Amino acid sequence: MKIILVAAVMLSHSFGESIKSKYEETSLKIISKSLTDSTAYNRLGYMCDTFGPRLSGSKNLENAIKWILKEMNSDGFENVRGEKVPVPTWIRGKESATLLSPFKKELSMLGLGGSISTPRGGLKAEVIVVNNWDELESRSNEVPGKIVLFNAPFTSYGETVAYRYSGASAAAKHGAVASLIRSIGPWSMNTPHTGVMAYDDDVQKIPHAALTMEDAMMLSRIHDRGDKIIVKLDMNARMVADRWSHNVLGEIKGSIYPDEVVVVGGHIDSWDVGQGAQDDGGGCIASWEAVRLIQELGLKPKRTIRCVLWTNEENGGQGNKGYRDMHMDEMDKHVLAIESDGGVFSPKGFGFSGNDSARKIVEEIHALMKPIGANTISEGGRAADVAPLNDEGVPVMSLKVDGSKYFWYHHTNADTFDKVDFNEFNRCVAAIAIMAYVVADLDEPLPR
Amino acid sequence: MKIILVAAVMLSHSFGESIKSKYEETSLKIISKSLTDSTAYNRLGYMCDTFGPRLSGSKNLENAIKWILKEMNSDGFENVRGEKVPVPTWIRGKESATLLSPFKKELSMLGLGGSISTPRGGLKAEVIVVNNWDELESRSNEVPGKIVLFNAPFTSYGETVAYRYSGASAAAKHGAVASLIRSIGPWSMNTPHTGVMAYDDDVQKIPHAALTMEDAMMLSRIHDRGDKIIVKLDMNARMVADRWSHNVLGEIKGSIYPDEVVVVGGHIDSWDVGQGAQDDGGGCIASWEAVRLIQELGLKPKRTIRCVLWTNEENGGQGNKGYRDMHMDEMDKHVLAIESDGGVFSPKGFGFSGNDSARKIVEEIHALMKPIGANTISEGGRAADVAPLNDEGVPVMSLKVDGSKYFWYHHTNADTFDKVDFNEFNRCVAAIAIMAYVVADLDEPLPR
Repeated sequence: MKIILVAAVMLSHSFGESIKSKYEETSLKIISKSLTDSTAYNRLGYMCDTFGPRLSGSKNLENAIKWILKEMNSDGFENVRGEKVPVPTWIRGKESATLLSPFKKELSMLGLGGSISTPRGGLKAEVIVVNNWDELESRSNEVPGKIVLFNAPFTSYGETVAYRYSGASAAAKHGAVASLIRSIGPWSMNTPHTGVMAYDDDVQKIPHAALTMEDAMMLSRIHDRGDKIIVKLDMNARMVADRWSHNVLGEIKGSIYPDEVVVVGGHIDSWDVGQGAQDDGGGCIASWEAVRLIQELGLKPKRTIRCVLWTNEENGGQGNKGYRDMHMDEMDKHVLAIESDGGVFSPKGFGFSGNDSARKIVEEIHALMKPIGANTISEGGRAADVAPLNDEGVPVMSLKVDGSKYFWYHHTNADTFDKVDFNEFNRCVAAIAIMAYVVADLDEPLPR
Repeated sequence: MKIILVAAVMLSHSFGESIKSKYEETSLKIISKSLTDSTAYNRLGYMCDTFGPRLSGSKNLENAIKWILKEMNSDGFENVRGEKVPVPTWIRGKESATLLSPFKKELSMLGLGGSISTPRGGLKAEVIVVNNWDELESRSNEVPGKIVLFNAPFTSYGETVAYRYSGASAAAKHGAVASLIRSIGPWSMNTPHTGVMAYDDDVQKIPHAALTMEDAMMLSRIHDRGDKIIVKLDMNARMVADRWSHNVLGEIKGSIYPDEVVVVGGHIDSWDVGQGAQDDGGGCIASWEAVRLIQELGLKPKRTIRCVLWTNEENGGQGNKGYRDMHMDEMDKHVLAIESDGGVFSPKGFGFSGNDSARKIVEEIHALMKPIGANTISEGGRAADVAPLNDEGVPVMSLKVDGSKYFWYHHTNADTFDKVDFNEFNRCVAAIAIMAYVVADLDEPLPR
């Protein structure tokens, strides 16, 4: 045993000083600074409370972006810029869903992003409730002329979101005049969830909206008792011409390899409800703050660290595609891209998509994050905005956090600044800062 | 030691068979039946989904009452009747609160029960945010002409509810034109809470409404940053003339002392939002079911068990006063009155207000409820609808449950049937049934 241990230690040392011994002191400094600094937390609160939700194509979003560019400049970041991206623009307009029979009740609802409007004056129809795709198929003959309500219980976001994304065309194929879903979330306090949807090209477009879990379950019970349900749906939603938005970039230059880049970021757009605090204001401000702290601590990483706040993640992904396209010539210089888009709850570590040699190094860096509980490396670094970079060969990472409440707030009016805990948020900042700094400062770039 | 133990056992036996040995088999039967019977759970769902929320003075409430009377008759209850009670009647009407500055946002709100309307067309004013009564006093000179927002954090319902009940007159005394509160609850997903408020006689009446925790906290942060807040409040609320409502009564007659009565019940009215499922549809249907189960099991208690569903608990208490007044001549025959009005979550036992001799007996009965975890006797049986009976000398009890989520839903659109768990609800039924049956069947009435 002893001999093997000695050999292992020698092997590790044969590549020079271990990551632990080289970066432990610095990472403790980063942790100590992040846990006590309130700059980022206050900035997140200010952004949430001043600009409101940040849907692609909205003035709110562009105002928030302008403010960030100004602040990044005053932080002393280099190459601060907004890179223009055309974004699809959907406008919710006024909307309502009213239960007319068996009794009158205003239903709490949110139209789904991309949905068309109802005819002017609204649309009144009987509702058929189905619990899944199979039931829609098997009851096909009852659907024509009706509103289909998909009352699918939440299993996982990945699975259940299909009703939101594809429900309208699925219902329209059977002759539905509109479709409703039970909000995609595991828990509700009369809280509807919005989110993106899309139409099949070859099917009649029909309006598509989300009810609260409570109302969807109620309508399902009424339906099961055999009572006739009539709902009036009135939506003024519309797509307008693409508008200009911007990816936000700001960086600190590498001291030795300035053309090699470690990217950290999140998406600066949100849905048009709540404040987009957890999705993804928190991820954006935490990434920005990670870079600012590295600078403020006087650390001089060998490589450039670039904060990228992508636009239009929620309903189009034009931000991440735009960034990839505009930076294609430096793709092989992208050493790592880190995304935070799962909320800024208690951090657990990072999901990683890259090769095994890189993974071993990343694992060693994780050990530095033990003091903040973020030392678990897992699979799956391909989040929405870094996936296009990964497709080009860039190793990518995704911050993993305690996700138990993420889908409570996701895409709702309850995704507000008060849901962000100061200490949890700051631990996310520390995790991103340590990972970005150490990878940017290694003697060799992460192997691909 | 041995001698003392023998003496104690002899003492207990000197009053005849112990409660445990006499009622254990029956209580296990009650438990077994309640835990598997879905009659009450289905009735609660039916009531919630068919009649909607049940505000005093509304058709919804009277329709629900009519249905209960019909069902109690078909259950074979005796003396089923609605006892007429005049109830104060408040009508919410259309209402909205719109943030106009520093940016435009519809605030999720609920007017508070008893509030007057705004002037026609609404009322637009600057908002001053205070966190407590002291701040209102110390900033008195800033209040005239403004809307006061009480952003008081939830400590306990008993303490924090004062801002809801008395906030309007407190603000008006300093010259406010309207008042808002942060909703009275510990948790929110953009969920406003309504509830009753009152005006001091000698102060100008001003409109009074609740914002969500999220919006109240946001306005407080904006206020702290020094930004001017302007809100437009538009409420059409009004009090109209008292209307007739009914206390619901139905009973099974005692086999030996039919004029002695054990009361079980809850309040059948609710606020005009959600479904009043936990507050207090669940308590009502559980009490009713307890009586029905005793009957269905063929148990013949010596005393009468009367289910009483009081009206107008939420905004006037005319139901409980009416019951007391109409039954004053039989007050000394009321052996016990049990109320369930804290939700039908996992039952813990009963709070009891009565003398020590009665308490000892009640404690023995609690031991029978160990299989359902409801064997903890505690202080405080005086809930709102049984307190007037207690004032007349009647021992009273209040079902105690796991209250950790009660104030999440209380008086909101999230107080819906889906929040009621089948097993927890049925254990409440069992607890009420055992307590009512054993007390009604004791050889002697509970000592006063």
